[in-house]
Parts: sequence; C-alpha cells; structure tokens
Amino acid sequence: MSKQFFKMLENEQTGYASPLNEVMAELNFNENGLIPAIAQQFDTGEVLMQAWMNAESISRTLSSNKVCYWSRSRNKFWTKGEESGHTQKLKELRIDCDGDSLLLLVDQSGPACHTNRASCFYLKVEDNKVIILS
Amino acid sequence: MSKQFFKMLENEQTGYASPLNEVMAELNFNENGLIPAIAQQFDTGEVLMQAWMNAESISRTLSSNKVCYWSRSRNKFWTKGEESGHTQKLKELRIDCDGDSLLLLVDQSGPACHTNRASCFYLKVEDNKVIILS
Repeated sequence: MSKQFFKMLENEQTGYASPLNEVMAELNFNENGLIPAIAQQFDTGEVLMQAWMNAESISRTLSSNKVCYWSRSRNKFWTKGEESGHTQKLKELRIDCDGDSLLLLVDQSGPACHTNRASCFYLKVEDNKVIILS
Repeated sequence: MSKQFFKMLENEQTGYASPLNEVMAELNFNENGLIPAIAQQFDTGEVLMQAWMNAESISRTLSSNKVCYWSRSRNKFWTKGEESGHTQKLKELRIDCDGDSLLLLVDQSGPACHTNRASCFYLKVEDNKVIILS
C-alpha cells in the first residue's frame, strides 16, 4: 500500500501538497512501530545522530518543535535534552522517497552526543582501524 | 556486550585506535543482521539517502570504496548505481557512539534517488501538509 502511495508521489511536481495525516498513515513503520530518524544541524549540515521515532513522537515533535524520539533502550518517549539540556529545536522535517526514513533539520543546543561530543558519529574507519575523531 | 565495548571507547582520547575487526564484532546489527547507514555527500553535507548494510556489505564497501548496501526489498546485495550508474564512492565511514548506526561520507555520481532527484529526502512537512521540494 505505502509503496504505491509513495510511487504515486514520485511523478508529481515541485510544490505538490498532500495532507499530512494521509502521508503519516502510509509511512513504513517497522514491526515495532518505529522509523529511523536522522538529525542534521540545519545550518552547518553536520549529521548529529540517528535515533527512532514512532507516530506519536512525530506528532509531539511537530506540535512542540522540540524533537522527541522513542528510546528503544528505555522503552519510552525521549524528548532530546530533557535530562542533559541539550535540546533539538525542529527547523524542518523531511520524509524520504519510500516513506521509510525521516530527516530532521534541527538547531542543536550543546553537544548532541551523550559523550558530550558534538556529533554521535565520532568513530572513523581507517586502514583496518577505528579511530576516535574527537 | 557491545554496549560495554562502546561505553569503554567513550573515555578514550582523540586518535585512540581499535582494530576494525574487533569493532565490527561489536556492532549492533538488528535481528536481520542489518544496521542503518546514512549517505551524506562529503563536500556539500547534503544527506542523500538512508539504507541498510550487513557485515558483508560493509566489508565489500571498504574493500572496493564503492558503497554496497543490503536491499531489504530485493533481499540481496545492492552496489549503489549498479543499474543506474549513479554510484557512491566512499570517502569515509563513521560509526556512532552506540555502534548502532553508520554514516557514509560519499561522492555521489548523479542523483542519489531512484526518482532522479539529488536526495531521497524530497518531501517536506509544512503546516499539516507534505510538500514536494524538487
């Protein structure tokens, strides 16, 4: 079903609009009701982290403009920064061509990573080694 | 196990190196042996797509510098651009703090999206609508 929906959108022109609730109903949530969400700093383009959202966390994020994930390890909603203060203000939410991934353009307050690094992607593969970047 | 491994890395300094095979063994693949991989254009910072890799597709990517995903819909390896010609040359592979997500810095040849758009994230949420960006 959702494949057909997103296939239909492919052929529409720039500016074509669909009701959000119709698109939400077609998103490809996995068997746990989750979809991957990538957080990118809106102005620098730095990819900060990747986490998971369910339908309710998407709704909470859109209504508050504060990014709310679903924590798989704690099995509960996780408004980013609720403990650390390192919040993510939503600037824009994008959906991919198959409806199975989200891109969040955010304004990150402080470091995104729980290790206090700017980005969670701080490990780099090089010459059969994994190097700490920062 | 892998949680402990990545927890240990958190406290190491910039430049600290671990053998790649040890890190690979600790990556958090899901129940299907897959891990999310985000492709970002290395020079512009544009997020191009999100797909999935397994251990073997990571190895193939690192040995060839041509990005190879695992296609969940076709249930087979998928070297990006093998049909379209729109290949992704790997510039750098990064791993996140929990070992459960990959960031691929790539040089994309042509459009990344099967719809011939530059990025797969061409749908934008705005005012209870989803708008086609390009």
